[in-house]
Amino acid sequence: MILIAERINGMFTDVKRAIAEKDKKVIQELANRQTQAGAACLDVNVGTAAADQEGTMQWLIESIQETCSTPLCLDSQKPDVIAAGLKVVNTDNGVLLNSTPLNKKSDEDVFDKYIEMAEHAGPKANLIALTMDKNGVPQDTDNRVAIAAEIVSKAIEKGFDPQRLFIDPIVLPVKVPNAQVQPCNILAAMEQIQYLADPAPHMTVGLSNLSQGTSERSLINRVFLAMAMSRGLDSAIADVFDTDLVNVVATTEMLMNKQIYSDSFLKVYASTNR
Amino acid sequence: MILIAERINGMFTDVKRAIAEKDKKVIQELANRQTQAGAACLDVNVGTAAADQEGTMQWLIESIQETCSTPLCLDSQKPDVIAAGLKVVNTDNGVLLNSTPLNKKSDEDVFDKYIEMAEHAGPKANLIALTMDKNGVPQDTDNRVAIAAEIVSKAIEKGFDPQRLFIDPIVLPVKVPNAQVQPCNILAAMEQIQYLADPAPHMTVGLSNLSQGTSERSLINRVFLAMAMSRGLDSAIADVFDTDLVNVVATTEMLMNKQIYSDSFLKVYASTNR
Repeated sequence: MILIAERINGMFTDVKRAIAEKDKKVIQELANRQTQAGAACLDVNVGTAAADQEGTMQWLIESIQETCSTPLCLDSQKPDVIAAGLKVVNTDNGVLLNSTPLNKKSDEDVFDKYIEMAEHAGPKANLIALTMDKNGVPQDTDNRVAIAAEIVSKAIEKGFDPQRLFIDPIVLPVKVPNAQVQPCNILAAMEQIQYLADPAPHMTVGLSNLSQGTSERSLINRVFLAMAMSRGLDSAIADVFDTDLVNVVATTEMLMNKQIYSDSFLKVYASTNR
Repeated sequence: MILIAERINGMFTDVKRAIAEKDKKVIQELANRQTQAGAACLDVNVGTAAADQEGTMQWLIESIQETCSTPLCLDSQKPDVIAAGLKVVNTDNGVLLNSTPLNKKSDEDVFDKYIEMAEHAGPKANLIALTMDKNGVPQDTDNRVAIAAEIVSKAIEKGFDPQRLFIDPIVLPVKVPNAQVQPCNILAAMEQIQYLADPAPHMTVGLSNLSQGTSERSLINRVFLAMAMSRGLDSAIADVFDTDLVNVVATTEMLMNKQIYSDSFLKVYASTNR
């Protein structure tokens, strides 16, 4: 399981403050602690408060790279912010571009642009692709799968290895009633997406989004994660400080036959993933 | 979710002692506490210690029925013990016969016998059918599904409503290495069994069997249960005193769209299932 740690995000008040005060110790501590907790990759999101988003992205990346070599996940809805990040990121560590839709109303070629950016960043650059197109997030399972299929085929067409794609079928908060996009529909989409290519493309989700505003965040995240992992989800942007969640990841990997059972399987998982 | 509570079983020392000393208070307290904890049904298993298994089954049933009307699940590998139980059980409450294989080497018609026993016990009698035949428990997914299909078709042939079947795809302990029957293979079998009839036949498992002898029993049970419920498992023989497990059941039902999210969804589940 490729856990992408979510905490270096300007949405959190400690990070927001650190960005405003250029206090890189806060960022570096989060980078090291998340790596220690089992993160394979660190999400980096400047949030919305910073005036200079491009400069802030670069400052965050440089601050982290001073202290650890964990791969980074450059997270922004603005391609220019990701492009700015790519100028300073150490691509030898691996880098994930987060994220592109298939298309946007305003920009038909946005997916192509991201593929080019990833290609330009070298062979260790991967790309999160959202199952949404110019019509937005589809309201049913079939269209999510259809967009995922189009993402995979467009990648192949452009000579971009589908193994470098992380397809995100987009989980929405359970708290917001939405008849068409219940979590069970997302699971049904995952069940199909895992067979779109062989070997399967990676799949990821912004897990915490699911439990946004609920009373049982960790429990909801954990249960969904186990169900999703049993349908090919092999990555998630998540709270790696949630030990219960990491233990569920280890248990699911064991039950899905990706790790052999031993009485210390939780410790084995923790030690091999840090 | 139809939770069948596992604790009234002569395998547990308190029950074994209560049986030996004919101390019905112990049994009655377990019956009431498990019902209060959310059991839809109480498993009743005399264990192996009692000399008079038939008499003990009747004594257990009569003791429970003095104090509560929760449906009972008569659990024995000996049809005579189940038949003895059926003589005293209040079938108006509902009763589950646990269990029959499709066939046994020694007795080709064992499945037919159980169907007849269930029919004779009236319309509220249901039957747990194991996906095993005269060759024992199949070592792969396909044969488990094939046996499940044969169970459903034999039931239909005999005019026995498939809705009265609880198909048990048989989980084995993760601690015992078995290349062919990993938990992920059982999940793959469930994925198919749920489509054998419409409406789907019930599916059940002896959940605690999975974590037998492991260091993380509740965690392993919980993670597997969530994955299995997302593939149509709608019943399990389980430890209903495990609050974490019951909370996972509630969360899975919510995520699978069987219960609407509210901030008190765990309490709502608990109060509607007790």
